[in-house]
Amino acid sequence: MTAWEQNYEELVAELRRNALLESCGSVLGWERETYMPEGGTELRSRQLSLLAGLRHQWSTSPRLGELLRSLASEDLGPADGPVAVNVRQACRDYDLATRLPQKLVEEISRVTALSQHAWQQAKKQNRFADFEPWLKQVVSLKREQAACLHAGKSGPVYDSLLDLYEPGVTTAEIQATFAPLREQLVPLVGRLAEASSKPDASLLAREYPIEQQRVLAREAAQAIGFDFRRGRIDESAHPFCSGFGPGDCRLTTRYDAHFFSMAFFGTLHEAGHGMYEQGLPEESFGLGMGHSVSLGIHESQSRMWENLVGRSRPFWQHFLPLARNQFPEALGDVETETFYRAINKVEPSWIRVEADEVTYNLHIMLRFELEQKLIGGELEPADVPGAWNEVFQQYLGITPPDDARGCLQDVHWSAGLIGYFPTYALGNIYASQFYRAAERELGDLSALFARGEFSPLRQWLNTNIHQRGQQYTAGELVRVVTGESFSALPLVEYLENKFNDVYCLT
Amino acid sequence: MTAWEQNYEELVAELRRNALLESCGSVLGWERETYMPEGGTELRSRQLSLLAGLRHQWSTSPRLGELLRSLASEDLGPADGPVAVNVRQACRDYDLATRLPQKLVEEISRVTALSQHAWQQAKKQNRFADFEPWLKQVVSLKREQAACLHAGKSGPVYDSLLDLYEPGVTTAEIQATFAPLREQLVPLVGRLAEASSKPDASLLAREYPIEQQRVLAREAAQAIGFDFRRGRIDESAHPFCSGFGPGDCRLTTRYDAHFFSMAFFGTLHEAGHGMYEQGLPEESFGLGMGHSVSLGIHESQSRMWENLVGRSRPFWQHFLPLARNQFPEALGDVETETFYRAINKVEPSWIRVEADEVTYNLHIMLRFELEQKLIGGELEPADVPGAWNEVFQQYLGITPPDDARGCLQDVHWSAGLIGYFPTYALGNIYASQFYRAAERELGDLSALFARGEFSPLRQWLNTNIHQRGQQYTAGELVRVVTGESFSALPLVEYLENKFNDVYCLT
Repeated sequence: MTAWEQNYEELVAELRRNALLESCGSVLGWERETYMPEGGTELRSRQLSLLAGLRHQWSTSPRLGELLRSLASEDLGPADGPVAVNVRQACRDYDLATRLPQKLVEEISRVTALSQHAWQQAKKQNRFADFEPWLKQVVSLKREQAACLHAGKSGPVYDSLLDLYEPGVTTAEIQATFAPLREQLVPLVGRLAEASSKPDASLLAREYPIEQQRVLAREAAQAIGFDFRRGRIDESAHPFCSGFGPGDCRLTTRYDAHFFSMAFFGTLHEAGHGMYEQGLPEESFGLGMGHSVSLGIHESQSRMWENLVGRSRPFWQHFLPLARNQFPEALGDVETETFYRAINKVEPSWIRVEADEVTYNLHIMLRFELEQKLIGGELEPADVPGAWNEVFQQYLGITPPDDARGCLQDVHWSAGLIGYFPTYALGNIYASQFYRAAERELGDLSALFARGEFSPLRQWLNTNIHQRGQQYTAGELVRVVTGESFSALPLVEYLENKFNDVYCLT
Repeated sequence: MTAWEQNYEELVAELRRNALLESCGSVLGWERETYMPEGGTELRSRQLSLLAGLRHQWSTSPRLGELLRSLASEDLGPADGPVAVNVRQACRDYDLATRLPQKLVEEISRVTALSQHAWQQAKKQNRFADFEPWLKQVVSLKREQAACLHAGKSGPVYDSLLDLYEPGVTTAEIQATFAPLREQLVPLVGRLAEASSKPDASLLAREYPIEQQRVLAREAAQAIGFDFRRGRIDESAHPFCSGFGPGDCRLTTRYDAHFFSMAFFGTLHEAGHGMYEQGLPEESFGLGMGHSVSLGIHESQSRMWENLVGRSRPFWQHFLPLARNQFPEALGDVETETFYRAINKVEPSWIRVEADEVTYNLHIMLRFELEQKLIGGELEPADVPGAWNEVFQQYLGITPPDDARGCLQDVHWSAGLIGYFPTYALGNIYASQFYRAAERELGDLSALFARGEFSPLRQWLNTNIHQRGQQYTAGELVRVVTGESFSALPLVEYLENKFNDVYCLT
């Protein structure tokens, strides 16, 4: 074994150990959201802070730096080969980690644990004032973090928060994509509002007993390919997916007996994330080749299964009979076309996670605007409710009736996830590009879905995306997989075609 | 602040940090038994091994050694004062930890995680042969561990495994207690078997729907004082209690729709453990003053609530109406006295955790015999089934029909818990001594129980036992609380009185 091979082997062992420690924190984080009793809040926040601090210490160890510096000067083979990819990603992670003081990392972990708890209470009681001091603390810590990450770089500091979730993407690039997208979506929403034949979504508010919803959601996740031997689904206030590591991936959802869509499409969404995690090469756990590309690419998987598949007509040609088995009273008299139109009703609404495919992106743009201002210091946390309602009115033409259905609806800011929201809209854009490429290669997917055959698409995603880990950046991956560069055009075309059809405007 | 005060403060910070790390492992261990999917086995065992190794590293750090050596030479106040207690316990833990090489600790953690999984499968399929190679590995590792712990000490090495769970108690002392106890229990079992009026336990095998069992078990745990704001109850293959730390204590149980006793008394049992954990002084988390005395004392709490309270006549005078609400079909026609006799039927049976109060201790004595021989090298793991059945026949007069109901029934050996079983019988002995002292001080507990008043006993236990942490050893605590020395006599008297009455032999 040569010297660099020895160094590489040592690097791999260190990285795996760090990933293993991180995965311990994932279990604790998941458990906090699913089963932990009220009284455990303080202890859990201290546990997570201890692990986060330790993780930070390990990922900034001088030995890791030595190994990386020595490997960086070697010829590691092709840039998209596994060794080069793993070293490149490790260098990136090391650079990011060493920019942050240990104290700050521990403080962010400690405060966001408590702040999420405060957010949950504040949302329940619709009291923004109770959450405001926490938001203030979080924003202040995130500004401090952004400053550390951005030292020596140009452009807005917000770029450095974005980069944590969508490596290499800038504020300017997102603005350049979002602005024209908004100019096409707003009129589309308007046209649909004026259509003479509108879907009736009231059937989704009939009685759907929760026990049966559980069965159906599980059936759907299993049908599209989520592996329950290597994962499970539980309940939490805010749905999420957490891939602990090889062999163990957790989804959560939430149920409302009078709203069909929430749990069902929420589960498809999280299962999309879950299949990405389950599809990563297990032997590369802890390494770049075993890690998802970015949150945007992650979201492309969840949104594809939730919307491009799960809200398609052929999906329900197959699935409605199964849903009728569970809900004979609510769905016994409902035709496929009626149901398909109901789940695709476009209408400005308050809650992002329940928004239709067209208005969804406007919810993201709003958050993107406010986040930049919070981090730039142009918006005070205390002024968030007002700013939220103002931009909401401007983008969606309505005003939230209260903060619980306004700026308190999402867990993200309380958890310190600032710079994260834009990846949701990027995910929609990537999803349309990937889906178009999949159809070019696999032929008519509709016919397959109508027969309940989802594995050709899943396998295509596995080969083209999941198995590649971080071999490419998001932009490169789009080009490699689709032969085209990043563009919102396929998303706009998909939305125009689909909703003109749903609203009988063709 | 004086130099020793500074050292003490540093020691406390170190110990709290170690306890916090250990508590992370507790969450992962609990989750493995309750929710983890099959596919997560390998990853979880690596996570636990990482944490165990790290924990070992921290608890053997040279700095900790320095602090303890320097503090040991100071005047730390009275021997049962908090500072002296905390330092003494820390010295003990440090001595135990430094006797074990890191590699061995990690290996034990790794192997027992996998071995528990193998045990579960082997038990399910009634195949001892599948478990045997794992038992061999575990025994070999435990012998290695015992040798390290016993270096420089006299007596059997098994003493040093016992000492891990019941500090200071020796094999000889347990033998000296168990032998005469067995000589009194075996004839009692025989007398009861020949009684003309025997309880009929068949009503416990009626249909008890699991959902209602859940409600009742929760009601019972709450009634005796387990705090669900600071804990919860879930299901696992083998019931246990895990106190994560201040504010968070978990119980597990298991349900059988055709066996009332399992979940109900199992829950009372675990809630007894849980109330001890919830009753420890929170401000002393990580320190001797915040830790339970020993497993035997822990078991005295669980067995007291399960048996001395939960299987008493007055308990059911209060609780049977509540049980009838949940199970009108199974219990509608059952009188208190009939029910009381049913749950107190004495009969040799195969499964320890379902055994009655009299035969239970014989199950423990059997395990104590075999463990000593496994560790002494006089019994090969392959010969365990034969030896088990032989001693079982000798003590209980029956032979298990298969290994699943024989030597495969308990999780302990697969988990590396050798030297642990004797503490269960010690718990029964302590419980009888404590209960007698409580009755002396509080007066007639029966009248309170019949009115559903359990808090006087719980508060007495809290003041006399829980709040004292490790202020005293088990033997000292018995003397301080009861004014008497350790003795199995109160247990024998309790059993004779109770079962002569239940069997109408008085």
